[in-house]
Amino acid sequence: MENVAAIVYTAGGELMHENCPNALCPVLFRPMIEWVNAALDEAGVSDRCYVRRSGEEEIEKYTGSAPVFCCGEESGHPVLSAKDWVLGRKDKNFIVLCAEAPFVDAASIKAAFDHHTETNYEMTVLASGGRTAFIKELEISSFWVKGAFLLELFASSDPEDKAGAQFVSSALKILSDRQTVAGTFISGKQEINMRAKNALELVSLNAAARTAVFKKLCAGGVNLICTDGVVVEPTVKVGAGTTILPGTILRGSTEIGENCVIGPNSYIEDSKIGNGAEVNSTQIRSATLENGVKIGPFSQVRPGTVIRENCKIGDYVEIKNSDIGARTAIAHLTYIGDSDVGEGVNFGCGCCVANYDGQHKHRTKIGNHAFIGCNTNLIAPVEVGDFGYTAAGSTVTKDVPEYALAVERGTQKNIENWVKKHDAIKIK
Amino acid sequence: MENVAAIVYTAGGELMHENCPNALCPVLFRPMIEWVNAALDEAGVSDRCYVRRSGEEEIEKYTGSAPVFCCGEESGHPVLSAKDWVLGRKDKNFIVLCAEAPFVDAASIKAAFDHHTETNYEMTVLASGGRTAFIKELEISSFWVKGAFLLELFASSDPEDKAGAQFVSSALKILSDRQTVAGTFISGKQEINMRAKNALELVSLNAAARTAVFKKLCAGGVNLICTDGVVVEPTVKVGAGTTILPGTILRGSTEIGENCVIGPNSYIEDSKIGNGAEVNSTQIRSATLENGVKIGPFSQVRPGTVIRENCKIGDYVEIKNSDIGARTAIAHLTYIGDSDVGEGVNFGCGCCVANYDGQHKHRTKIGNHAFIGCNTNLIAPVEVGDFGYTAAGSTVTKDVPEYALAVERGTQKNIENWVKKHDAIKIK
Amino acid sequence: MENVAAIVYTAGGELMHENCPNALCPVLFRPMIEWVNAALDEAGVSDRCYVRRSGEEEIEKYTGSAPVFCCGEESGHPVLSAKDWVLGRKDKNFIVLCAEAPFVDAASIKAAFDHHTETNYEMTVLASGGRTAFIKELEISSFWVKGAFLLELFASSDPEDKAGAQFVSSALKILSDRQTVAGTFISGKQEINMRAKNALELVSLNAAARTAVFKKLCAGGVNLICTDGVVVEPTVKVGAGTTILPGTILRGSTEIGENCVIGPNSYIEDSKIGNGAEVNSTQIRSATLENGVKIGPFSQVRPGTVIRENCKIGDYVEIKNSDIGARTAIAHLTYIGDSDVGEGVNFGCGCCVANYDGQHKHRTKIGNHAFIGCNTNLIAPVEVGDFGYTAAGSTVTKDVPEYALAVERGTQKNIENWVKKHDAIKIK
Repeated sequence: MENVAAIVYTAGGELMHENCPNALCPVLFRPMIEWVNAALDEAGVSDRCYVRRSGEEEIEKYTGSAPVFCCGEESGHPVLSAKDWVLGRKDKNFIVLCAEAPFVDAASIKAAFDHHTETNYEMTVLASGGRTAFIKELEISSFWVKGAFLLELFASSDPEDKAGAQFVSSALKILSDRQTVAGTFISGKQEINMRAKNALELVSLNAAARTAVFKKLCAGGVNLICTDGVVVEPTVKVGAGTTILPGTILRGSTEIGENCVIGPNSYIEDSKIGNGAEVNSTQIRSATLENGVKIGPFSQVRPGTVIRENCKIGDYVEIKNSDIGARTAIAHLTYIGDSDVGEGVNFGCGCCVANYDGQHKHRTKIGNHAFIGCNTNLIAPVEVGDFGYTAAGSTVTKDVPEYALAVERGTQKNIENWVKKHDAIKIK
Repeated sequence: MENVAAIVYTAGGELMHENCPNALCPVLFRPMIEWVNAALDEAGVSDRCYVRRSGEEEIEKYTGSAPVFCCGEESGHPVLSAKDWVLGRKDKNFIVLCAEAPFVDAASIKAAFDHHTETNYEMTVLASGGRTAFIKELEISSFWVKGAFLLELFASSDPEDKAGAQFVSSALKILSDRQTVAGTFISGKQEINMRAKNALELVSLNAAARTAVFKKLCAGGVNLICTDGVVVEPTVKVGAGTTILPGTILRGSTEIGENCVIGPNSYIEDSKIGNGAEVNSTQIRSATLENGVKIGPFSQVRPGTVIRENCKIGDYVEIKNSDIGARTAIAHLTYIGDSDVGEGVNFGCGCCVANYDGQHKHRTKIGNHAFIGCNTNLIAPVEVGDFGYTAAGSTVTKDVPEYALAVERGTQKNIENWVKKHDAIKIK
Repeated sequence: MENVAAIVYTAGGELMHENCPNALCPVLFRPMIEWVNAALDEAGVSDRCYVRRSGEEEIEKYTGSAPVFCCGEESGHPVLSAKDWVLGRKDKNFIVLCAEAPFVDAASIKAAFDHHTETNYEMTVLASGGRTAFIKELEISSFWVKGAFLLELFASSDPEDKAGAQFVSSALKILSDRQTVAGTFISGKQEINMRAKNALELVSLNAAARTAVFKKLCAGGVNLICTDGVVVEPTVKVGAGTTILPGTILRGSTEIGENCVIGPNSYIEDSKIGNGAEVNSTQIRSATLENGVKIGPFSQVRPGTVIRENCKIGDYVEIKNSDIGARTAIAHLTYIGDSDVGEGVNFGCGCCVANYDGQHKHRTKIGNHAFIGCNTNLIAPVEVGDFGYTAAGSTVTKDVPEYALAVERGTQKNIENWVKKHDAIKIK
């Protein structure tokens, strides 16, 4: 598309949330205006302006460097506020989009533009395929319009129509009076004009967005046994043969490989998961799990972590900002923070790689094939060499050379009959 | 409403569960009879009696000090069993309610009463708005009736009508024969007469109850991305701008503040959560979390706990019957029982405040800005002063003065080449 | 049924998953062909053959010792490939089943056979009750047919009909031309012929399977407050009065007792749970929990474990291949592996029964009424006698006699004003 520009406007109101402009209400965690922005980005429409309502300053967090016009309650259709901006672009075609109709997509924008220019319409409304194409009956959220015609509309708009509700129909009337030509582009996407009139309908928008993603996933060979509680953002990629179990939330730039089992009840955000991985009831943020990693249930991987091939991470394991070498096993009840761990390392139960002394966070290094005994504390900064061992229950503050066993432990004493003397237990 | 009384009856049977009277089958965790009781409480109808079926003794757990009459299989409509009780109140108006139709509400009871008295009807049936008001076609669960007319009905009831199925229609016939007047009050609440005929329909009652709560939450500005697995009791309050994620169960007297994120997969019962809190995959019972507390994933707060402003509780943390001062951090794998913890305290990983010696539970006190090293055991009763430190891996049995560092630890020895000698690891 | 045989065929294609034959696509975790196999097993039809498509070698993992014929793309209806096998059985009746229609059941197979033989039909199609019985309109997945007639069909099948789409209709034409008699058996099971045409419809098959199980559970007195995320395999048994909360997955040979509360978010596979148990947000595989056991939230029971009556297991507890005696309490943050634990034992927080020394796994024995102090490590092989105690923070490597207290611990030193000297904390 050449010589195009976009006007994104908010219809305003507090239909959904008090103190939250409608366009910022989230659909699948993302403000609706961001959906529209993403469609324009993908369609390559970079010359944009925004029109917001007064009191909706927060909108400007999502408008980048584009100009933002503010329309008061008295200003009619919000698009009128962009008049001067349009004047400088009167030879362009404009796509006018409502920031509260999140399901407009780049493909429809582009195809509608082709239709608009091929037919040489003054104005082309985007409609959903499910509807009969009677233009009067449509709820119109988006349309292409020639700049010159848009300026005429501005000139003739009814100043009494504060909410701008008649803006499009008056456009159609002008078209009809002048016998100029307008038309409709029917998108294959049913939900293209969906908008919420209240908070409950916002739930429906989310449901529609989820269903659209499920269709795409299924078409790509993803196995969904039960989609209850499954929320996958449209930005997420999932490989064929992967099973997603109920209660799983996948967000942001997450990429899941092939033949994985993800869930139940897993949460993965901005992370990369390799092929053949299993993520059971585990939360992962901004991390990488390579091929064949198995983790869970009830573990957490925090930002900056890489878990390399075929590691086996069990339950109640938290890993933060660490690099875990291939085939390492961390079975249970362990915290590893700010560490570089080698390959084939074995962590016993209850280990703690403490990285914080109250003032600073330090980094810990553990060599290949080390064996960290259960309930070991490694107090950073400390290093365990290749094949280094630590005895169970030891607090390790000094480096452990390769092949050495570090022991910090007293001698076990058994105090005979202590229990009888202390009457510590009544017979239950 | 003055001069009113209520008769709550059970229709009986084992349509849903064997060994569980229908009226005790739960909808959103609460026996249906309790829903009816709550509506009467809110409507202010305190003069009540109950009629239960024989074998349903368990009903009497939910009838307070009100008289309970038992009707056998041979006794016709259960209301007949309340005859003597009605006799002593014949000048009153009676609201007759089925304990198995849980969705009757105080507003409908009151508005129907106003209609009943203004029209001077003998009998006024509560119907749902969705139905055409043909009284014959209605499933009647509740009605207002004058005491005198109810006594007439008792006198003329058909003794062959064991199940009482014809009770209301025979009332209507009498009304018609005598040309006295009865009518219908149409409630705005669609589900007012909903009852379950089998266990699967009990699931539907639960679904209807969930949807009604979702509508109320949405109207109050709560953000529901996906309601799958979300179960919120009608008694729960949630502030505007709060997001509830899938799999979250909110129960009892729980109150959630504004702008929180609750879930996924959290369970909160009888607790108070302040504004701006985050509760991720965590279970909380009978506790208070003040503003700005972040907790989870996978933590548990047990009864008697207060977590004060802006505390940060991470994963695998259990807190029981404790008071945690503002801005305290408890990051991971820690149990705190029966403790009073100051402000700005930092707990390392794997700490255990042991409160049980096999015989008694003791209380532990930790001062402001204390720093509890990882894998510390604090053996109650014990006290750590302000700014007191404990070294990692220490078991602390004696009080730690303010600014002191408590150490219980041996000296680390590294046994060189121990691994080689013990052949502890074959090369993998 | 006597003198019967079955031909199970795959329709083939990659409608659902690339690299996964349709018949192996899972419904409730089990390949669809296994559903058909289970129905034949239950119906007692052991004389079977299978016809698979070329490239579907993986099918043969599910065909036992039965012969498998492969039909190429040029071979017409897959059943034609079983011609020689049918020749040796021409006096038998054959049930022909599509391996991708998983909901055929033994009762329908048997009842259809009775109908087939009583009416002396050449061919009897299994249809679902919900449809008008116009045979032409039916999607036919399964039918009974006399061997002799099947051989005639083979002889007259259209070699141009590569996909075999006209196989059944041509059978009907032959029947009609010859005035021999065929008919329809209407099964009470609505979903008997359900098949998926794409991956999204596979999700629908799963939904239908879940609903069928819910109906059965409800009829058996199970309480389902909200079925979201609940997935129960048809092989699972659940006792009356048990409540299943959202997000719960029950699999395989699992048997749950009466009056339990299972969930939310629990996962139980191939396990036996006694009466009155509570399983809160816990995963259990190949284990037994006896009556009255309470476990969770966030615990894990791994294969080979028996937890005996009235044990109380709290949060973050992993138990593997162990026998836990009655009334034992394991409250939090504990791992028990390969152990035999007595009755009435109390584990403090953070205990670890280490069973792996880097080379071997060993077994640990703990006597009745022992008291294991918090953060105790028991290094296998080791034994604690009846009423044996271990002091908090001890690593126990030698046996503890009965009534003895084992202590492995240094002496606590408090270093006065250490914090001030080390400037360890700036005033926050």
